[in-house]
Amino acid sequence: MSTPIAPEVVDHVHEVARRARRASRQLAQLTRGEKDAALLALADAVDAATAAVVAANGEDLDRGRASGLSENLLDRLTLDADRVHAVADALRQIATLPDPVGEVVRGSTLANGLQIRQVRVPMGVVGMIYEARPNVTVDAAGLGLKSGNAVILRGGSAASSTNAALVGVLRSALEAQGLDPDAVNLLSEGGHDAARALMTARGLVDLVIPRGGASLIRTVVTESTVPVIETGVGNCHVYVDGSADADMAVRIVTNSKTHRPSVCNAAESLLVHRDAAARVLPGVMAELAAAGVTVHGDEDTRGYAETAGARWVPVTPEDDDTEFLSLDISARVVDDLDAAITHVQEHTSGHTEAIVTADRDAARRFTAEVDAAAVLVNASTRFTDGGEFGFGAEIGISTQKLHARGPMALPELTTTKWVVEGDGQVR
Amino acid sequence: MSTPIAPEVVDHVHEVARRARRASRQLAQLTRGEKDAALLALADAVDAATAAVVAANGEDLDRGRASGLSENLLDRLTLDADRVHAVADALRQIATLPDPVGEVVRGSTLANGLQIRQVRVPMGVVGMIYEARPNVTVDAAGLGLKSGNAVILRGGSAASSTNAALVGVLRSALEAQGLDPDAVNLLSEGGHDAARALMTARGLVDLVIPRGGASLIRTVVTESTVPVIETGVGNCHVYVDGSADADMAVRIVTNSKTHRPSVCNAAESLLVHRDAAARVLPGVMAELAAAGVTVHGDEDTRGYAETAGARWVPVTPEDDDTEFLSLDISARVVDDLDAAITHVQEHTSGHTEAIVTADRDAARRFTAEVDAAAVLVNASTRFTDGGEFGFGAEIGISTQKLHARGPMALPELTTTKWVVEGDGQVR
Repeated sequence: MSTPIAPEVVDHVHEVARRARRASRQLAQLTRGEKDAALLALADAVDAATAAVVAANGEDLDRGRASGLSENLLDRLTLDADRVHAVADALRQIATLPDPVGEVVRGSTLANGLQIRQVRVPMGVVGMIYEARPNVTVDAAGLGLKSGNAVILRGGSAASSTNAALVGVLRSALEAQGLDPDAVNLLSEGGHDAARALMTARGLVDLVIPRGGASLIRTVVTESTVPVIETGVGNCHVYVDGSADADMAVRIVTNSKTHRPSVCNAAESLLVHRDAAARVLPGVMAELAAAGVTVHGDEDTRGYAETAGARWVPVTPEDDDTEFLSLDISARVVDDLDAAITHVQEHTSGHTEAIVTADRDAARRFTAEVDAAAVLVNASTRFTDGGEFGFGAEIGISTQKLHARGPMALPELTTTKWVVEGDGQVR
Repeated sequence: MSTPIAPEVVDHVHEVARRARRASRQLAQLTRGEKDAALLALADAVDAATAAVVAANGEDLDRGRASGLSENLLDRLTLDADRVHAVADALRQIATLPDPVGEVVRGSTLANGLQIRQVRVPMGVVGMIYEARPNVTVDAAGLGLKSGNAVILRGGSAASSTNAALVGVLRSALEAQGLDPDAVNLLSEGGHDAARALMTARGLVDLVIPRGGASLIRTVVTESTVPVIETGVGNCHVYVDGSADADMAVRIVTNSKTHRPSVCNAAESLLVHRDAAARVLPGVMAELAAAGVTVHGDEDTRGYAETAGARWVPVTPEDDDTEFLSLDISARVVDDLDAAITHVQEHTSGHTEAIVTADRDAARRFTAEVDAAAVLVNASTRFTDGGEFGFGAEIGISTQKLHARGPMALPELTTTKWVVEGDGQVR
């Protein structure tokens, strides 16, 4: 199905990965003090290079406008002086976070006297494949450095000039600190083949994290032979139980859908218990109408939407599985808690699911039976976020079950090693 | 490169996986008491079915002998009455282990009053692909049940009659306990395509664990789109430092190589510091000669081997990367600790690496700089084992860095879920 990867691209990516591996060995031995000092130096270097970064970003923006990039994408791509400063500050913020490396996760002394302990260590070499968001470039480099990992970055081509400028600054600053610049690497050539070479560099790369839309993630999961952490696709539901407080339900549904519709923890589907429909849906529909949301609803929701002046279209089976990332929401009235849980089980993307209820049993059943990275009771879906959870930084939100689930930060960029100390024990 | 999977096999495997998913929802809600009672009932059922299982095993053995299976493989395949009883007892042992499900891994109350906690939950549906070892069938079913997971088993075809008999017994016993028999499933048809359909049943299967030789594991890693945990390839080194106690070095090298040469934590490579060669190699070679080990050595080892009467052949570059699983070992004299660490870094399979030393600095550098699931000081490589580590059971030894590293037991068959409780919070 897939065409072979150009051999010269494979050679180039493998060479980058081998250099990154060498750098990772140095990184793994750094103390927290050394890493934090480097992070602060990197932040100062980014600040000092503001003019050059903004100029490089201008090239990307010119190309983007010429190629008809949407306003939304152009906005994500833009780095003005304030945003460059925010990017530098993110590195300073990472310096304040605890270092996960060296943490003893568990340990014991065995009956034969062997002392065993499981110690947190860096992954080694981490690949990131993402879209045209230059702040991810610096965040990933900073989180990599703090967790002792070398990173290989493959950013969206629309941000190529900005990424080259930023990575150039970071590498020079690392070198000035006496550190190996190959701790931070950018794959700037080779097009799609470079990404494919990265995700098949088995043994050279320890982990690949794709950040972006569903199709990017599907490609990486299908083609990668390197272990992958999937991030970010969120078909998040809010279920309003029969016992829900009407005001709370309106507030949570509205916030979950409209606070920032383009992100993965925005709500995409609304389920309302039949007993709550008449109490809750007038208010919900009024707020959704005011925010300009299109309701993809079943017949039971139609009258409420029309009375409130909300745009209503009939829900399709596809809508039930769609991550709209826009001012759209699917909406259904369900007969009971069982129907709600069954619907969520069938259509969840495993990101975030919320219930609004005053009923303790309903809350307990929903949190026990719904299988997702985060299950919320009486709170907006927008809270599934590394910053909100107090992690101080976020590399993405894992929607898979292996290794990391939910918001990922520094500890999720580490693995463990068993250290076993004896005095000559044999079996 | 790969041919399409027969559609009827895909349909069958997906149907099995959907039934397993339904069963997994029941399993996830069981208490420890209910699971332990079921495990004991399963153990009694296996004991009660001893005659039928031994008879089914006889069919496999007859087929195996007719097709010229090696004595070693026939032995692994054999289940006599004693071994059936041991298999049943393994289920009783699993019942005594703590239940990982429900453990609160971490949690806090956020500034806005949201209570968040990360809770251990089952993976859901776990696929196991393994060779003709019928005990793995029952172990995997028992560990799956205890951790709240439904399992889909794809055992080696040489054990098909035994596996069918065992899984039949387990499913009947589950049903007799009022549990869904689809908690334990065997893929008995469809040949290699069934395994391929299992490892590509994305969304239906949460995790695939291959247990077997390097080629099985490579196939699964390359073809799978379901997350995989790699197990078991061990090119384990023992490095004897210049400061090593000679008796201890002889004991550890000999035990690591000869205690059970066919398993993944057996030593395959010996490195000896030049300063220790004259003190250590005469004793090591004498023991290896006595055990019938062939030394694939460099020129520096030749004289010691020949004096001791050990069979010696020149080491090849391939030998440095070979998991012999036999009475063979590669052996090299190295100039210093740096050379030893560099060699191990280049050739490790990430399983187990050991140093024998009296020097504290050497021990600290080796454990810090060598990147493997287990790094041992002054102990035999044979200790990297779930039973030895006190886990009470083992599903395999992970040689990857994602999710689980080293011996895997019950907690490694779980994931986590964030449960967030509020009283109406929005952003």
